[in-house]
Amino acid sequence: MSKVIFDCDPGLDDAIALLLLCQSEYEILGVTTVAGNHRIEVTTKNALDLLSFYGRADIPVAKGAERPLIQPLTIADFVHGPNGLGEVILPEADRKPEAVHAVEWMKNTLMASTEKITLIAIGPLTNIGLLLSMYPEVKEQIKEISIMGGSTSFGNISPVAEANVGHDPEAAQIVFSSGVPIRMSGLNLTFQMFIQDREIEEIEALSTDVAKAAAKFLWYHAAFAKRMGLEVDQMHDTCAVVSLMEPEAFTGRMAKVTVDTGWGPGRGQTIADFRALEEERNVFIYESVERDRIIDLVQSAIARA
Amino acid sequence: MSKVIFDCDPGLDDAIALLLLCQSEYEILGVTTVAGNHRIEVTTKNALDLLSFYGRADIPVAKGAERPLIQPLTIADFVHGPNGLGEVILPEADRKPEAVHAVEWMKNTLMASTEKITLIAIGPLTNIGLLLSMYPEVKEQIKEISIMGGSTSFGNISPVAEANVGHDPEAAQIVFSSGVPIRMSGLNLTFQMFIQDREIEEIEALSTDVAKAAAKFLWYHAAFAKRMGLEVDQMHDTCAVVSLMEPEAFTGRMAKVTVDTGWGPGRGQTIADFRALEEERNVFIYESVERDRIIDLVQSAIARA
Amino acid sequence: MSKVIFDCDPGLDDAIALLLLCQSEYEILGVTTVAGNHRIEVTTKNALDLLSFYGRADIPVAKGAERPLIQPLTIADFVHGPNGLGEVILPEADRKPEAVHAVEWMKNTLMASTEKITLIAIGPLTNIGLLLSMYPEVKEQIKEISIMGGSTSFGNISPVAEANVGHDPEAAQIVFSSGVPIRMSGLNLTFQMFIQDREIEEIEALSTDVAKAAAKFLWYHAAFAKRMGLEVDQMHDTCAVVSLMEPEAFTGRMAKVTVDTGWGPGRGQTIADFRALEEERNVFIYESVERDRIIDLVQSAIARA
Amino acid sequence: MSKVIFDCDPGLDDAIALLLLCQSEYEILGVTTVAGNHRIEVTTKNALDLLSFYGRADIPVAKGAERPLIQPLTIADFVHGPNGLGEVILPEADRKPEAVHAVEWMKNTLMASTEKITLIAIGPLTNIGLLLSMYPEVKEQIKEISIMGGSTSFGNISPVAEANVGHDPEAAQIVFSSGVPIRMSGLNLTFQMFIQDREIEEIEALSTDVAKAAAKFLWYHAAFAKRMGLEVDQMHDTCAVVSLMEPEAFTGRMAKVTVDTGWGPGRGQTIADFRALEEERNVFIYESVERDRIIDLVQSAIARA
Repeated sequence: MSKVIFDCDPGLDDAIALLLLCQSEYEILGVTTVAGNHRIEVTTKNALDLLSFYGRADIPVAKGAERPLIQPLTIADFVHGPNGLGEVILPEADRKPEAVHAVEWMKNTLMASTEKITLIAIGPLTNIGLLLSMYPEVKEQIKEISIMGGSTSFGNISPVAEANVGHDPEAAQIVFSSGVPIRMSGLNLTFQMFIQDREIEEIEALSTDVAKAAAKFLWYHAAFAKRMGLEVDQMHDTCAVVSLMEPEAFTGRMAKVTVDTGWGPGRGQTIADFRALEEERNVFIYESVERDRIIDLVQSAIARA
Repeated sequence: MSKVIFDCDPGLDDAIALLLLCQSEYEILGVTTVAGNHRIEVTTKNALDLLSFYGRADIPVAKGAERPLIQPLTIADFVHGPNGLGEVILPEADRKPEAVHAVEWMKNTLMASTEKITLIAIGPLTNIGLLLSMYPEVKEQIKEISIMGGSTSFGNISPVAEANVGHDPEAAQIVFSSGVPIRMSGLNLTFQMFIQDREIEEIEALSTDVAKAAAKFLWYHAAFAKRMGLEVDQMHDTCAVVSLMEPEAFTGRMAKVTVDTGWGPGRGQTIADFRALEEERNVFIYESVERDRIIDLVQSAIARA
Repeated sequence: MSKVIFDCDPGLDDAIALLLLCQSEYEILGVTTVAGNHRIEVTTKNALDLLSFYGRADIPVAKGAERPLIQPLTIADFVHGPNGLGEVILPEADRKPEAVHAVEWMKNTLMASTEKITLIAIGPLTNIGLLLSMYPEVKEQIKEISIMGGSTSFGNISPVAEANVGHDPEAAQIVFSSGVPIRMSGLNLTFQMFIQDREIEEIEALSTDVAKAAAKFLWYHAAFAKRMGLEVDQMHDTCAVVSLMEPEAFTGRMAKVTVDTGWGPGRGQTIADFRALEEERNVFIYESVERDRIIDLVQSAIARA
Repeated sequence: MSKVIFDCDPGLDDAIALLLLCQSEYEILGVTTVAGNHRIEVTTKNALDLLSFYGRADIPVAKGAERPLIQPLTIADFVHGPNGLGEVILPEADRKPEAVHAVEWMKNTLMASTEKITLIAIGPLTNIGLLLSMYPEVKEQIKEISIMGGSTSFGNISPVAEANVGHDPEAAQIVFSSGVPIRMSGLNLTFQMFIQDREIEEIEALSTDVAKAAAKFLWYHAAFAKRMGLEVDQMHDTCAVVSLMEPEAFTGRMAKVTVDTGWGPGRGQTIADFRALEEERNVFIYESVERDRIIDLVQSAIARA
C-alpha cells in the first residue's frame, strides 16, 4: 500500500479529488494546504472540514504558503464560491492544523519514512517549490509527484497559462526542474476528463450525505463551466488522483518541461519539448484518458464512501 | 480576378505554392523575396528561375530583406538543400530582379492600384513588417494578408515557435498588430495538409517537366520529414495559397494573436486568444482543411501546368 | 567640409541643435523627421519652419516614421508644448517635404555620395533602424552616427530608460548592433551639459530674432526642468551636434552597448559593457564635457546666426 | 544593545565583516550560511572556523540554502580562493552547525524574541527569501535588513547585475518587495569603500593572529581586484555592517527597488526609482560614505580583536 501526501487548495475539484483518494488503497499520511483557489485560511479550514466529513479526521492537516513566491496572490472565488466549496456548509471540524508549517511537516514526514512517498499536488506549487529549495535531501524520499497543472495545449488564465502553474510560475519551475519524477495532468488531459449532467445526477441519486455533497460540488463547478460556454464540466484535480489509482486508463509521454517565468504574454506557460534528449526529459505528460472507465471509478468510489 | 503579391523564400514548399498560384485565377502582380529558408541571393535566384521554368518570366521579382530585424539570420538548408530547391537544377533565368527593394516595389505597386491587393507571405515577415512600418498608408490598399506562419499547437524551431514567425518575431508582431486583415495558416493547420508518397508518385507520373520537378521538390522535403520521424510530408506554404483558391475547404476562427518577442523559452510563439473581445481579434486562424479535396486541387493544377 | 544628415523630432532642444549645426562647418545634406517629441506631422512642419527661420530653406526635409516599430507612439508635448516648439509661432515655410520617405531619401543620398556621410540622430531611432534593415548597403557610406540617446547612469522615462531609446528599443537595438561606428551622447553626458538662467539671458540679450527664439526655446524647456525639481536645464540634443563640432571638449570610452528589448522593468535601457572584448565594443560613449567651453560655442554660434 | 542575525557566505569580505561585527556593540544571535561565494559546505565550515578563531564559538551557526531558487549555483572561488578564505587555513572548529535549517533557525529565533531583530545579509538572498515566503509572520519581528547587494550604478557579474542579487534575482525580489525595512549597500557605495595597500599594511603590523589573518584576507581579495585592473580593493560586505555601527558616516535616500527577474541582458539588476511615490519607496539606498572614518573604525576594531 503506497503512502501519499496530498497538497491542495480546496476548492471544489480538490474536494472530489480528496474524496476519491480517501476511497483508494493509498495511505494518506497528511494533507497540506496552499493559497490558490482561495486564501490559505479558507483552504485550510476546508481541508479540515472535508476530512472530518469524509470520516478521516485522523489524517493530519498542515497549513502552507499564503501567497506565491513573487507575484501577488490571485484567488478563484468566482469559480469555487465565497467559501471555496460552492456554498456547501460542512460541519466545522473540531481540531486545528499541525503546529508546523506544511513545508516543515512534509520534510519531517518524508525524512522519517522508511519508504518513498508519493506527492499529489493540485494547487499552486508554492509549498513543493519551498520544500525542494529548503530541503533538497527530501528528493531521495519522494517516489514521484502527481501534479494537476500546466498544459500542452491552451491555458485557462491566459491563452497559454493554466491556473496552478500560472499562479506561481517560479515555484513550478523549481519543481519541474528538480529532478524528481513528475506526472503532469495538464489541461490538455483534464479537458478530456469531463463529467456529464446525467452522471452528476447519478451521483446525486446515491443519496448518502457524502454523495449529495459531492454532487453539489460538481453542480457548482459545472455552473461556472456553463457560464464560460462549455457544455460539460471538467474534473481537473481529480485527474492527479485517479491517474495513480487507475494508471492503465491513461496514456502519455515523457517530455522536457520548462515554465515560462518571464514577464511577457507567455508567462506561466509549461513549454513541453517532446523532442528533447532522452536524459533531459523530466516529466511524464498524460495525453489521453479512458473517460468512461474513470467515471465508473468515480461513481463507485463515491458509492462506497 | 483578384490581384496578389507573393512574398516568399524559395524553398521547396514555396516552389510548390508558387506553381499552384500560377495555375490559379489570381493575377500575380509580382514576387518578392526574403531571407529565410536560405540567404536572400539564393531565394531571389530561385524565385527568378522558378518563374521562368513555370513560363511566367513576365512576373516581376523584387529582392527584399537579407536578415531579420533584430536577431541573426538562420537558414534551413538542412531541409531545402544547398541550393534551396532540393538540388534540383533549373535553367538559369535570363533576367534580374527589379532595381528597387522589395518593400519599395510593394509600396509602389500597392499605391498605384485602383483596387485592393492580397498579399501572400510564406517566409519570415521581415519585408511585410518593414512595408507596414515605413509606409502605413499602404494598409488601405491591402485586402488581406494570407500568412504561412505561427501555430496554435506546437512549433517546429522550438517547442512553441514556428519557423517563419520565430525567425523574425519582431516583424511578425508588427504585421499581426497592424490592423490589416490576416489569415493565418499555422502549423496546427499545415500538419493536417500532408501528402502521401502515393500521391507524390501520381504527380511524378504526370511526366511533364514541371510535374517531375514538383515531385522532386516534394520527395526532397518528404525525405527531411522522414528523417524527423514523420510518416508523411507536410505542405506548409501551400496552405497560404490554396486557402485562398478553395476557401470552402477550410474552417477557422477569429482570435487575437500576439507574438512573444521576449527572450525566454517562448520567444517566437504566436499566442492566440480566442476569448479576446471581438474588437481585439485581429487574425482569422485556419483550424481544419479537407485534405483530400486540396490534394485533388494540387494534382490537377500541376497536371495543367 | 564634412557632410551630414540630421534626423530629428523638433522639439525644443532639436531646434537649438539644428541652429548650431547650421552655424557649423558641416554641410547639411538634409533633415529627416521622425515621430517622438511630437507626432510626425508636427515634427516635420517644425523642421521646415525652423530651416526657413534659420535662412536655410535650401536644405531638403524628408518625412519619416510615424510610430515606433513595435510599441505605440508616446509623445512629450508636456515638455515641448502643444506645437512642439514651446508655443513659439514661427512663420510657416512655403514648401513641402520631399516626395519620398525619409528612409528612402537617406538611402538615395548616401548611395549617391562620393564620400562617407555622418548621421546625427536625436529622436527615436526608427528611421535609422529602418534604413539599416532595408538598405544594409548604406553602411559602407556612413562615416558614423552621432546619437543623442541612452544612458550609462539613470533614465528619464523609467529609472533606467532614456526617451529616445526607450521610445523605440527595437530600432535602437538594430542601430547599435549594426556595426556602423556610433557616438553616444547619453543622459550620463547630457546632464553635465546644463545651461544656467544667466546664460540663457545672455542669449536673449543678443536681441536678434533667432537669438530671441532660441532663448524662448531654452526658457520653455527650462521651465519643465524646474517643474521636475532640477535647478538648471539640460541641452540634451545639442550634445550630439557639438560633440562633432568641438570633439576635444569631450571624453569617452568604447563599450559594447545592448538595448534591453524585453518587457520587464528594464525595457529600453542601454546596457553598456566597458569590459567587453575589444572587438565587441561597438559604441563610443561620451562621459564628460567641458561645459563652459560648449556654452561659449553655443552662445557665439547663436550670435553669428 | 541591538540584536542581530548575520546571513553570509564566507568568503573573504564576509570574514572581515564578521570580525567587525564581533567587535561591535551588537549582540550576535547567530550566523546563518548560504551558498554564494562558495558551496554551502565550504561557507558553513568557514563560518564555524571563523567564529572559533574570533573567540566566539558561543554563537550558533545554522546551514542554509545550497543553491538559488531557480537558476543554477555559480560560485566565486576565483575571487575567494579554493577554500573561500584566500588559502588561509584556520584551526578547525570542534562543533557542528545547528540541527535545523538556517531558515527554520531564523524563524525560531525571530519568533522567540521579545524585541525586533536586525538581519544582516551579505550573500545571495536565498535564505531570507525563503524565510519571508515560508514564515511571513516574522516580518513583524524584523527591525530591518542591512543588505550588501545590488547597485544603482554598474554591476560586477554583468554590466548591470551585482553578484549577491544577480546570483538569486528571484529571492532578492521576494526580499525587496516584502515590506520589511531595507538598507542597501550596493556597488555604487561599496566602490567608495576601498582600502589602500598602506592601510592593509597597518593592519598587518598589528601582529595579532587575528590581524594577520585579516590582512591575509584583504591581500588575497586585493590581488583579485588588481588582476581586474583596479588600483585598490573594495570592502563590499563590510559596508552592510559598518553602516549599522557608524550610521552618521553614510548618506542615502529612499527609493523603490525592483529586481529584474527577466531573462534578457538586464537580469539581476536592482532598478532603483528615486522618483517613485513616497509610499512605494521600499529601500534606503546608501549613496556615500566617509571612507577615512570607516577605515579608522575597521583598523581600531581589528586592533581590539
